[in-house]
Amino acid sequence: MCAANEKMSGVARLIEVTAVEDPRVDDFRDLSTADRRPDRPGGRGLVIAEGVVVVRRMLASPYPIRALLGVRRRIEELGDEIADLDVPAYIADAEVMAGIVGFHLNRGVLAIADRAPEVELTRLTATARRLAVLEGIGDHENLGSLFRNAAAFGIDGVLLGAGCSDPLYRRSVRVSMGHVLRVPFTRVHSWPGDLKLLRDEGFRIVALSPRASSVPLREAEPGREPVAILLGSEGPGLTEQAMTAADVTVRIPMAGEVDSLNVATSAAIVFHIMGEGSEGGGR
Amino acid sequence: MCAANEKMSGVARLIEVTAVEDPRVDDFRDLSTADRRPDRPGGRGLVIAEGVVVVRRMLASPYPIRALLGVRRRIEELGDEIADLDVPAYIADAEVMAGIVGFHLNRGVLAIADRAPEVELTRLTATARRLAVLEGIGDHENLGSLFRNAAAFGIDGVLLGAGCSDPLYRRSVRVSMGHVLRVPFTRVHSWPGDLKLLRDEGFRIVALSPRASSVPLREAEPGREPVAILLGSEGPGLTEQAMTAADVTVRIPMAGEVDSLNVATSAAIVFHIMGEGSEGGGR
Repeated sequence: MCAANEKMSGVARLIEVTAVEDPRVDDFRDLSTADRRPDRPGGRGLVIAEGVVVVRRMLASPYPIRALLGVRRRIEELGDEIADLDVPAYIADAEVMAGIVGFHLNRGVLAIADRAPEVELTRLTATARRLAVLEGIGDHENLGSLFRNAAAFGIDGVLLGAGCSDPLYRRSVRVSMGHVLRVPFTRVHSWPGDLKLLRDEGFRIVALSPRASSVPLREAEPGREPVAILLGSEGPGLTEQAMTAADVTVRIPMAGEVDSLNVATSAAIVFHIMGEGSEGGGR
Repeated sequence: MCAANEKMSGVARLIEVTAVEDPRVDDFRDLSTADRRPDRPGGRGLVIAEGVVVVRRMLASPYPIRALLGVRRRIEELGDEIADLDVPAYIADAEVMAGIVGFHLNRGVLAIADRAPEVELTRLTATARRLAVLEGIGDHENLGSLFRNAAAFGIDGVLLGAGCSDPLYRRSVRVSMGHVLRVPFTRVHSWPGDLKLLRDEGFRIVALSPRASSVPLREAEPGREPVAILLGSEGPGLTEQAMTAADVTVRIPMAGEVDSLNVATSAAIVFHIMGEGSEGGGR
């Protein structure tokens, strides 16, 4: 039923898989539910990386990899990077792979990892200079994009307030280009009460809101740190409770008629501007 | 077969549709192909607006609306805005609507328009202060996001160079929040030769590229106009031919390891920074 050809080699443990029903690749089965949190139906809470770029970020992350699955060319492309990894690297052709994961996957390689414990809030605040604090970001793509942009502009960590979805869902991982695996994040359990902890640690809390009373971004002392940048969802924006916790409320100057930008795009602009003049601003 | 209840009212011509197969709503049938260019299989080249916000932008656009289709609540929400519109507004329940368009549509209202002639390049260059010039933007979502961001930061027009897809595809219209219907655009037929026309009209051409020889964005005289901002696709970036047409090549300063931002996000940052200090910058 399944012709396996196991061998030890320079790259992980290469194992050929020729049958869709091979039980050894069960972690990769029906991917569209495998990433759900363990408390959800069908959910196993596994973290899934798709494509060579994202798999590389997973290899460099604290998430413990269980296995890889890919077409031969992609597994070989990872070569040295998985040489010392003591996990199976399953090789299958594209059709068998599609049968296992449940849809055609054009990125050619997957890695699956267990979740790692979230960092503690106090550990983040002790070392970070610039944090992003999110409220109500329920859309997985927006959340993923936000992490990608956070990484691009050297944000040291992300705090997830009320109403944020799980950044480790497959779609978020993919849209983030794997940066959710790199940028530390943690859930804020008492919201927005715990924002006070940030203040106590000396963080200035800068909230983004298009309301008329907000000051233009550029006037909010870019470069002054430590700073926590508070962002709400696109439609409803930040709640009043979150807003009152802020030291200053800023807006991105925009042309007349336009309602608002996508939240991840707004975030990128704020991260960029607030980082100007900072030593960690990546210039 | 179909119980139609036609009446004239304060809002367009309200027509109730109760049968999926009603031929009067054929323009809305199988929406996933209706927006294809007429030269493509199944393509009728129609422009499709989804949801109240985007339909409003279509109403304010130069695209001639043929008809609306929506659930009663959404058609009524448009009320006065469609009162003087001499086109049919078909009302159906959500299930009939799903049967017509071919999938469940949670925005509740659609408008369909014919294409309008593209503006001429010389007309754009004669009045614009800030233009975006795109090369190789084939992804419909990225293209839509780019238009949304162009509108947000007061870009006066978009030139589509080689390899750009059609901004009037349904997905682009939706992701742009309807701003592709508002921001004038035109195809550049001789690429990149026609960039010379921009130069002749006094535009400074600023190209975005992450290469090391690029100058940080902030050093490229933000606010100096007229300016044409040249943007390439995420992976390959701008071609050498396009790059050599530029007066200056800029980069967005980023944190160490990150490869690049999404092209629409990069565009938003460049539009924002290059607009600072400009009179049209929307402050």
